[in-house]
Amino acid sequence: MDTEQLKKRAGEKAAERLENGMLVGLGTGSTVFYFIEKLIEKCKEGLSVTIVSSSKRSLDQAMQAKVSLADMDQVTHVDMTVDGADEIDGQRWMIKGGGGALLREKILAVMSKEIVIIVDDSKIVQRLGKHPLPVEILPFGHLATIDQMHLLGYQGKLRVFESGKPYLTDNGNYIYDIHFQGLRSDPKKDHEKLIHIPGVLETGFFFDLPIEIFVAQSDGQIKQI
Amino acid sequence: MDTEQLKKRAGEKAAERLENGMLVGLGTGSTVFYFIEKLIEKCKEGLSVTIVSSSKRSLDQAMQAKVSLADMDQVTHVDMTVDGADEIDGQRWMIKGGGGALLREKILAVMSKEIVIIVDDSKIVQRLGKHPLPVEILPFGHLATIDQMHLLGYQGKLRVFESGKPYLTDNGNYIYDIHFQGLRSDPKKDHEKLIHIPGVLETGFFFDLPIEIFVAQSDGQIKQI
Repeated sequence: MDTEQLKKRAGEKAAERLENGMLVGLGTGSTVFYFIEKLIEKCKEGLSVTIVSSSKRSLDQAMQAKVSLADMDQVTHVDMTVDGADEIDGQRWMIKGGGGALLREKILAVMSKEIVIIVDDSKIVQRLGKHPLPVEILPFGHLATIDQMHLLGYQGKLRVFESGKPYLTDNGNYIYDIHFQGLRSDPKKDHEKLIHIPGVLETGFFFDLPIEIFVAQSDGQIKQI
Repeated sequence: MDTEQLKKRAGEKAAERLENGMLVGLGTGSTVFYFIEKLIEKCKEGLSVTIVSSSKRSLDQAMQAKVSLADMDQVTHVDMTVDGADEIDGQRWMIKGGGGALLREKILAVMSKEIVIIVDDSKIVQRLGKHPLPVEILPFGHLATIDQMHLLGYQGKLRVFESGKPYLTDNGNYIYDIHFQGLRSDPKKDHEKLIHIPGVLETGFFFDLPIEIFVAQSDGQIKQI
């Protein structure tokens, strides 16, 4: 089964969790795309849910199909959020934000009663750190902020568009992708060091959240871990 | 001596530190206003410095007088920053951000070799916490972020304009002013709890920075502490 079919299957599996009346949080990513497609299909068949989203892209996808929408500035809790991940380790800790929405994704995760993470099995790792760690930083004084990260031993790259201009998050901030020199033995320590730099607004490490993980395996099965 | 005269004197005292060739960081506030006025005067008399600023207001003030300007996106270090404070305790820890620029002020402080804080003596306290603690939060999901703060026991108010619309920082974020129930015995603990909430971008606590404090006393003297 090819990757796209696998992702589609994982997205559809997560959609089985949808129930009438739910406030559903939409994450970002290629697998989440298929979840949203299935959600739209179900809404057309009569399912009634309201959505909020951590990214404009996912929001646009759902809005085109006229799915009922809540304002993230008005809500304090979400029933279920479905999102992807870049890496998940044995402790169920994750690196997220490859799509650039880590700060909004984390806010959405923390306000969600239930978080369903859908990934293909290439994202399951022993230890985090092969994937770069995206860090959302304030444009104001960003060279100084990057300098502070370098002083702590974190090297990486400011994410840029093809034009060479810095990539902007939906919040109007920059993303700095940290490339680790080795797998992380203590990612919480990395996170602590980084968030104490004033211009670092959030890191892509996600720890200790009540997540359920649906893994699309290469044999075509969806495994829940 | 009235308060305005006192502030003017403190601002002018800080300006004595200016030297040719310096890259000078401008903070915000009523005392800093007088520092900038003196800086402009000195530049007209031949002083050559370049400035960066943590607030549009201070920047506008300096730009009107055509003081040479550097882009905060291009620099990594500043020679000297002059800023105000809302409260300073015996450990030289501060609450800042009454003017709403705490995140930019903290970035500027961390990148500065020397930080001169100018205040009148009403700002010197035994313990922090009488003044509300401004916290910069992301507009996205801000009710959920405020909810998280409440869960940790921090009550306060979203800062609003007279129109009732939320105040926006120069970064496009909101300010939540935490009103403590008593003076703080362990402000670092408060800070730690707060910055671990994903939508909290920074708090107005400033700890352990290499600051020099110029206090304008009611007797008209400027005391350095």
